Amino acid sequence: MTWLQRELRLEPRPRGFHLITDEIERAVPELERFEVGMAHVFIRHTSASLTLNENASPDVRRDFAAWFDRAVPDGAPYFSHTLEGADDMSAHIKSSLTGSSLVLPVADGRLALGTWQGIYLCEYRDHGGSRRLVVTAWGEPR
Amino acid sequence: MTWLQRELRLEPRPRGFHLITDEIERAVPELERFEVGMAHVFIRHTSASLTLNENASPDVRRDFAAWFDRAVPDGAPYFSHTLEGADDMSAHIKSSLTGSSLVLPVADGRLALGTWQGIYLCEYRDHGGSRRLVVTAWGEPR
Amino acid sequence: MTWLQRELRLEPRPRGFHLITDEIERAVPELERFEVGMAHVFIRHTSASLTLNENASPDVRRDFAAWFDRAVPDGAPYFSHTLEGADDMSAHIKSSLTGSSLVLPVADGRLALGTWQGIYLCEYRDHGGSRRLVVTAWGEPR
Repeated sequence: MTWLQRELRLEPRPRGFHLITDEIERAVPELERFEVGMAHVFIRHTSASLTLNENASPDVRRDFAAWFDRAVPDGAPYFSHTLEGADDMSAHIKSSLTGSSLVLPVADGRLALGTWQGIYLCEYRDHGGSRRLVVTAWGEPR
Repeated sequence: MTWLQRELRLEPRPRGFHLITDEIERAVPELERFEVGMAHVFIRHTSASLTLNENASPDVRRDFAAWFDRAVPDGAPYFSHTLEGADDMSAHIKSSLTGSSLVLPVADGRLALGTWQGIYLCEYRDHGGSRRLVVTAWGEPR
Repeated sequence: MTWLQRELRLEPRPRGFHLITDEIERAVPELERFEVGMAHVFIRHTSASLTLNENASPDVRRDFAAWFDRAVPDGAPYFSHTLEGADDMSAHIKSSLTGSSLVLPVADGRLALGTWQGIYLCEYRDHGGSRRLVVTAWGEPR
C-alpha cells in the first residue's frame, strides 16, 4: 500500500469553469506506478469547487456559467451575508452544489476517467485569487 | 488490505432516475469478506450521474425528474452548446449537480447504507445508451 | 494501514444548516495518530445531507436555507410524493443536491480543511429527529 499527498497552488483564474486535468495529473506523476488505487482532489476553499464534466467544447463551460449565474444570482435580495461583495454568498451556495472534492479511480497507472471527462475548477468569485488543492492517492504498486 | 476493481456496463435505460443498488451489490460479491472498508462507484460519463436517495416509492424518482427538468430546462435559450440536441447541455449541468461518484462505507461484509437509501442511476439523456461504471473497493478482510 | 469506523448519532436539530465539525473530530480522536490518510463522513438518511462550507458567519447558513427553500419549494404542485408531508419530497431533492458524504484528507494527525471550511449538517425536514452518521478513516500511522 502506497500513499501520496501533495498540496497544489493553482494560478488565479477569472470567474468561470476551467479545465485542470493536466495540472492534476502532472502533480502526481507517481500514479503511473499504481496497479489499482484511488485519487482524491480536494479544494480548501468555500467559494470555488471541483466537478467532472465534458472536456472538449469550451461552449459547455460557458453554459455552465450561464446556468449557475441564473440559478444562484449574485446579490439576491434575500441574502443577508453581503459584506464580502455581491459574488460572495452566491459563490458559497454554488460551491456546495458542485462540491469540494473529486474521488477518482486509478487503474493501470492512470486516472480511469471516461473519454469525455475532465476536471473543472469552478471559480465562482470575480477575484478569487490563487486556489489551494490537496491531492491524495493511495493504492497498490504494480 | 484487499482491493477490488471492476468495470460494469449497465443496460440502456430511459431518461429518468433508476434504482441500481442490486446490480452494484451483485457486481462485487467479494464485499462480504470485508470486515471494514469502502466502496466507490464511478460513472464514466458526463450526461448521466449517480446519487443516493429513497429506495421505496417510485413517486420519489418521478418527482426528481419533474424538479430537475424544471430547474435545468432542455434547450434553454441562453445555452450555446446545442449541436448534440436539446437534452445534452441540460444533462451536463444536471450531472454536475448530482455528481459522478458515490463513496460508501462497508461494514461487516455489506454496504452500510441506511434502511431507505438506494443507489440511483440518473439518466439525463433521452437516448443515453449503455452506461459504464467502475466499482472499486478496498478494506480489511475478516 | 489503520482503519477506524464508528457510528455517530446526532442530536435532533431544527430545519436548517448546522456546523458539526467539532462533533466529527471528537468522534475520531485517533486521527491524531495518522501521518497521512482519509476520513469519510456518511449520513444514513435521504432527507438530510452533509456539505462543507463557511464556518464563521451564521448569516451564511441562514442564506443557504433561504436559497434552498426557494430553489426546491415545499409542496411544489408538480410533486406526487406528498404523503409524508410538504417538506419531505423537497428534502429528498435538496439532499441529492448537497450529497450524502464528505471525503476529507487527513494530514499530520488532523483533517486538512481550509481555514474557513466547516462541516455542515443540512437538516431539510421540519422534524427530522436524530440523524445517524458513519465515520470511517484509513491511513498510515506516524
